[in-house]
Amino acid sequence: MKIRPLKTIEKMIPEGTEGVAMQVGIGKAEGAPRFAMRYFTVEPGGATPKHSHWWEHEVFVAGGKGEVFHGDEAHPIEKGDMVFVEPDELHQFRNTGDVPLEFICVVPHPE
Amino acid sequence: MKIRPLKTIEKMIPEGTEGVAMQVGIGKAEGAPRFAMRYFTVEPGGATPKHSHWWEHEVFVAGGKGEVFHGDEAHPIEKGDMVFVEPDELHQFRNTGDVPLEFICVVPHPE
Repeated sequence: MKIRPLKTIEKMIPEGTEGVAMQVGIGKAEGAPRFAMRYFTVEPGGATPKHSHWWEHEVFVAGGKGEVFHGDEAHPIEKGDMVFVEPDELHQFRNTGDVPLEFICVVPHPE
Repeated sequence: MKIRPLKTIEKMIPEGTEGVAMQVGIGKAEGAPRFAMRYFTVEPGGATPKHSHWWEHEVFVAGGKGEVFHGDEAHPIEKGDMVFVEPDELHQFRNTGDVPLEFICVVPHPE
């Protein structure tokens, strides 16, 4: 068992992002056999890249508000929402509020 | 893509629990191919069963505080902590506070 307070987890800047930090709280390094739990903080005005990939996202919005793009369609999201992004869907997360948009994003390990 | 606000997701009472509600936000019904994201609310004094199983838990504490038992050892947890429970570890979540203990718990689909 491992307990990791967010404030103790290193922040990384994912490639191709603006105003985004990622913390890998539970990954292969912690012994996770199948999938990884990451915490994202997106500053006001910031966004993740608009992209698609073979793996799904299972997201929980922990704070703030923003939009998720599904292709060119923007959908509002806020604290307390779960978002399922299917494999190969074009998507992007964007902060439209005045405070950080924070979310958990779980992904499978690379195949 | 699916966006599911917590307040729209049905609450279930897991077997063997006291004061616990579970909401399956992203599961097989939503098309999740590999793992499920559930939201747990544990009332003050409530607890999940002390048990073990072949699957891991990847947990994020979204609100409140409590303890996680690793066998007979109690470890404090609070909002902002990630908890990794390895496959086959004996574990239990208990609310020791005055407000609901709320957490995300991600598990693989049954094999």
